[in-house]
Amino acid sequence: MASVDVNFISNLPPGPLDAYRKRATFDWKQMKLFFEDAELLKVKMQLWQCLENDPIFERSLVVQPTEDMKRITALQLHNFRRYKILTPKMAKLPYKKKTRLLMTINEALAVTFPDVSVKHALGVDLFKNTLTTLGTERHQHILDAAWNGTALSCLALTEVAHGSNTKKMRTTSTYDKNTQEFVINTPDFQAAKCWVGNLGKSCTLALLFAQLYTNEQCYGLHAFVVPIRDPVTLLPYPGVTIGDMGEKIGLHGIDNGFIMFKDYRIPRENLLNRTADVTPEGEYKSSFSEPGKILAAALENLSAGRVGIMQESSNNLICAVTIAVRYAALRKQFNCKPDDDNETPIIEYQLHQWRLFPYVSAAAVFKIFISAFTNEYLSIVERSTAATKIEDFTAVVSEVHAIVSSSKPLMTWTCRDAVQECREACGGHGFLKSARFGDIRGAVDPTVTYEGDNNVLGQQASNWLLRQWEKVRHSEEDPCSPLGTCTFLKGYEEILGRTFVGTVVQDVLSLSFIHTCYEWLITYIVQETYNKQQSLVSTGKCRTEARNESQVYWASVLTRIYGEYNAFKFYCSQLATTQGSMHTVLEQLGILYGVSNLEKHCSYFYQGRFARTPEFSLLLKEGVLRACAGLKDNVVAIVDALAPPDYVINSVLGKTDGKLYENLQATFLQNPKALTRPEWWQEIVVPGAPDFKKPKCKL
Amino acid sequence: MASVDVNFISNLPPGPLDAYRKRATFDWKQMKLFFEDAELLKVKMQLWQCLENDPIFERSLVVQPTEDMKRITALQLHNFRRYKILTPKMAKLPYKKKTRLLMTINEALAVTFPDVSVKHALGVDLFKNTLTTLGTERHQHILDAAWNGTALSCLALTEVAHGSNTKKMRTTSTYDKNTQEFVINTPDFQAAKCWVGNLGKSCTLALLFAQLYTNEQCYGLHAFVVPIRDPVTLLPYPGVTIGDMGEKIGLHGIDNGFIMFKDYRIPRENLLNRTADVTPEGEYKSSFSEPGKILAAALENLSAGRVGIMQESSNNLICAVTIAVRYAALRKQFNCKPDDDNETPIIEYQLHQWRLFPYVSAAAVFKIFISAFTNEYLSIVERSTAATKIEDFTAVVSEVHAIVSSSKPLMTWTCRDAVQECREACGGHGFLKSARFGDIRGAVDPTVTYEGDNNVLGQQASNWLLRQWEKVRHSEEDPCSPLGTCTFLKGYEEILGRTFVGTVVQDVLSLSFIHTCYEWLITYIVQETYNKQQSLVSTGKCRTEARNESQVYWASVLTRIYGEYNAFKFYCSQLATTQGSMHTVLEQLGILYGVSNLEKHCSYFYQGRFARTPEFSLLLKEGVLRACAGLKDNVVAIVDALAPPDYVINSVLGKTDGKLYENLQATFLQNPKALTRPEWWQEIVVPGAPDFKKPKCKL
Repeated sequence: MASVDVNFISNLPPGPLDAYRKRATFDWKQMKLFFEDAELLKVKMQLWQCLENDPIFERSLVVQPTEDMKRITALQLHNFRRYKILTPKMAKLPYKKKTRLLMTINEALAVTFPDVSVKHALGVDLFKNTLTTLGTERHQHILDAAWNGTALSCLALTEVAHGSNTKKMRTTSTYDKNTQEFVINTPDFQAAKCWVGNLGKSCTLALLFAQLYTNEQCYGLHAFVVPIRDPVTLLPYPGVTIGDMGEKIGLHGIDNGFIMFKDYRIPRENLLNRTADVTPEGEYKSSFSEPGKILAAALENLSAGRVGIMQESSNNLICAVTIAVRYAALRKQFNCKPDDDNETPIIEYQLHQWRLFPYVSAAAVFKIFISAFTNEYLSIVERSTAATKIEDFTAVVSEVHAIVSSSKPLMTWTCRDAVQECREACGGHGFLKSARFGDIRGAVDPTVTYEGDNNVLGQQASNWLLRQWEKVRHSEEDPCSPLGTCTFLKGYEEILGRTFVGTVVQDVLSLSFIHTCYEWLITYIVQETYNKQQSLVSTGKCRTEARNESQVYWASVLTRIYGEYNAFKFYCSQLATTQGSMHTVLEQLGILYGVSNLEKHCSYFYQGRFARTPEFSLLLKEGVLRACAGLKDNVVAIVDALAPPDYVINSVLGKTDGKLYENLQATFLQNPKALTRPEWWQEIVVPGAPDFKKPKCKL
Repeated sequence: MASVDVNFISNLPPGPLDAYRKRATFDWKQMKLFFEDAELLKVKMQLWQCLENDPIFERSLVVQPTEDMKRITALQLHNFRRYKILTPKMAKLPYKKKTRLLMTINEALAVTFPDVSVKHALGVDLFKNTLTTLGTERHQHILDAAWNGTALSCLALTEVAHGSNTKKMRTTSTYDKNTQEFVINTPDFQAAKCWVGNLGKSCTLALLFAQLYTNEQCYGLHAFVVPIRDPVTLLPYPGVTIGDMGEKIGLHGIDNGFIMFKDYRIPRENLLNRTADVTPEGEYKSSFSEPGKILAAALENLSAGRVGIMQESSNNLICAVTIAVRYAALRKQFNCKPDDDNETPIIEYQLHQWRLFPYVSAAAVFKIFISAFTNEYLSIVERSTAATKIEDFTAVVSEVHAIVSSSKPLMTWTCRDAVQECREACGGHGFLKSARFGDIRGAVDPTVTYEGDNNVLGQQASNWLLRQWEKVRHSEEDPCSPLGTCTFLKGYEEILGRTFVGTVVQDVLSLSFIHTCYEWLITYIVQETYNKQQSLVSTGKCRTEARNESQVYWASVLTRIYGEYNAFKFYCSQLATTQGSMHTVLEQLGILYGVSNLEKHCSYFYQGRFARTPEFSLLLKEGVLRACAGLKDNVVAIVDALAPPDYVINSVLGKTDGKLYENLQATFLQNPKALTRPEWWQEIVVPGAPDFKKPKCKL
């Protein structure tokens, strides 16, 4: 990679972090442009500038009442929709480029104001996507309203008693041919739509998923556009009961709501009828006239939200490690060497490196992975939209779904764990709200159970891998893996015959060794999972039972390692485009990511006889420590390359100027009422309490 | 154990949980009295009754501004101090019994209102303990004020730039013989005392730890009682700058503060002079006249707070698993068998069992462990107070410290992980504030870094074990382990020669097998850690470096497994007092705890050649799943036995009546403003937004 123009990236302020920055063996700005596309980064910077200059986005040092947070977030959303970061010229770009831009704007918003991003994603982006892909020309004017900022929607799918099992949703939409309307009903509270973001207070439209009935027959879940509130008064229409769900434990600015319908009528045309329609006479008609679009729609609806979550996870992960690494370089405690009177920065301690650096490596790998995968994904959607035969794309759609189903759990869980470890690695100061780990946690926590509960969603990935294994092993076919994520399964005989022969730590510290291990591990676990399921079936269990009883230690591990491996593979591909000292450091990051993950799966290597002697476990562990130590002098510069600006990270512990204690002091004192007597002091005075300052009370 | 009177325990309301309750093979009330001492349980119930009847303890469905939470918590503390749960008769009980009662009251308070408990623990209990153990008769009147509720204190130890490394604290207290006063100074902001609970808004006294200087010599950290606020006006005295630290990410009711001193004078007598004093002339004098008391003081100060944290962790863990297990028994999703039209309670899924039941087993084991250990601990403190020779007790004090140093990290981290897993196991509904996981998390999170950061504190346990290993292996002495937690090290030759010979899953499902494995694992890891340190020293590293570089994978694992093993051992001892069907179930819990923990350490067994074939890993994994499945029909009754009443757990998802959806509905509707239009609706109306309900806007 030739060196590129990095002048648009501001220099970092000098300060105590320079001690480590000077030790870096590479140019952090060059590395930043490995992690981020320059043009997309400029778009992000433009949005951040807007936010920083807009008083409504001023951050409060004091936690606001939840009701106020909902109000402010709604107002922030209004302003954000008016920014027009996307110029008219950009809006005319082809699908892939335009969507990538929209995703970039969302990424930049989400890492700064996650609540606003979620409100926008649910109420505008997802709405537009769904109208575009599931709606038809008859919904154009409402799509226009979404584009021009006059309509805000919500996505009403989950019900009180059903989330993952969407087939069991019980809200009904029954066609009445006499009036040519659908009549929507909620049978009982358990069928109330709930957790619907934007619904509690603000939106006027709902994208409702309900069981479509016509001529007394049920045709399953379909999507309807449902006006729910009068846009002038914001009062719900008669027949609709809307409630706000109240307090949550994060994302406080989002007004999650529940909704119940009682004989609520909407016009026939409100059915999104791209894939199926009901005629005025009440006849149900599937339409398969545009297979490519249906397929693209399916893919888009399945994956777009999850791809967004993955992007956001990678950014949140970056924020967390940035704060913790900078703090670790500045915080000193104890002496490494007792004869030295200077205390040692905690980043020098092996244990501290081991707690943080694998997450730094995951941040780097995930950032590259999700960026490259997003490009791949958007290309596929773009191509499939133009497809005339479904068959051409079913295979790649399945594989994309498998990748997403493993990566979304992997990335959100890794981010969850990293945020906690980073908060602890900053000690008590990490518990300050101004450290920002609490807010990040509040935004990350729900991602592990929404848009497909991680444990449930992950089963889609293992099921796909098991199907490929069946092809390879039992039908003697090639795996159906157009993206190549499991073509290696063909070579299962050679792979399963591999054993560990290393004797020194260098033997485990290479990308090719990691690659070899992952191939073996995935092949071994897919084989054993398959065999376990077959053996359960042979004892009389049904397929569902067999699947359920092979999740723990098997299918769910398969999903995990497949996700780890995909991220690793994408990262290695991009790595090949770099050179010089930056390449060396990026390679070290990839190696640390690989060995630290493999070490956690160590027992499987013994179980499957890949390893037969103590060396494998010993060398992997030693390898992780070596890889950590090898990154130590570069890690501050690595987070400089990964991190968004201070304004975005917004942590008193993780500022680029490195003035940790000055910043802490300022934050303490800026806190309103920091130094004042509480207004309620008289309520807590204890009558007759002795004043030990007075001579007669002298101790 | 003969059956005991269980009539004082209320029956549980009938409801949907009965389906599982009826399958239980034991009497849950009998089991409750295995987990809790009947008399102590009655004391708890009495406090809970008081709290439930006191309007100040009414819980708000709406999050209050932090300032209000601090106010309410301060008022709650006032009321709590007036309850007098401890009768005058109880107050005259001997040390052990009285302290056990005080601890029980704290446990009951902490699990219900953690913020009040922390304020009380810091401001009253710890203050009284420290005055009693480090003070002398000249501090009696201030001790009286703490007892009669007219003084509230705080503990000022941590500084902005120093936490774990207490020796580096920089606040000074310099004796001025001219006035017979100490002059306290804070050299700069980095030396400001911080994170001091009660300091931000409310307390009038501080227990200050500062470097004592007299005659221009520093004698190290000493404790002083320092009046900081006028008890009548609650204004800080001149010379003292007090600030509130502002927003945190949990424990919002606690007013953590920072404090800086400028030439602030306190009388000479304010030094707590049990162990050392400064004469009026300025001479520093150590006093070793009462060695037992000094020892007891050391022990008390080191461990009492941590023992309290462990008790609280075990209760928080119980609350978390209770909510998640009850929810799992009620929530249905998908069908286990496709031909069955009834959905399956998620507790029936193997993956869900595996996610929750090991934490249920940990809750049971920890509850018993900490209860039994507390008794042991209090007996030792009681006996050591009366001791005349330090030597008699140094060994046991060291061992107690090692146990606490491993158990506090183990229990707090396990609780942290359990709360998160339980929140996720309740899906989206777990993200409701009313589910209570958020509040539990907010109370649990700081415990992993306060009262000794887990990673730092844990090193005390491994260091102690390494010293014992050195005795055994290199000095041919017995380990110095009066409590018997590592006497088995004597038999290291036999232990290290053990290998796994099991062939069927029953081979790993016994308490004795688990015991055998832990002995091997601890011995192997202590040996390897020791050898690693020696080898680092032999390459020229100093002892400190050698220790630092043997933490990851070695010393820190040693601490972890030693903690696990101690809990297991205490549990097994208590188990021996039970019989019948209850014994069987409790044994299954102990086995699940053991195998699920051992499975996580699997690679070490291969590394150390205890296991040489795939069976060990396979059977351990299979064992965990069998142990989970074996508990499934009893687990609802087990949590009934462990759980405090609904009022205490306070979760909409975990009520004893099992009316999950009715309770959710009620909570949604009780939420103020649930159904009303927001007061700020006009601010978010979009001018010109089309009304798609009107005919002209028809889609």
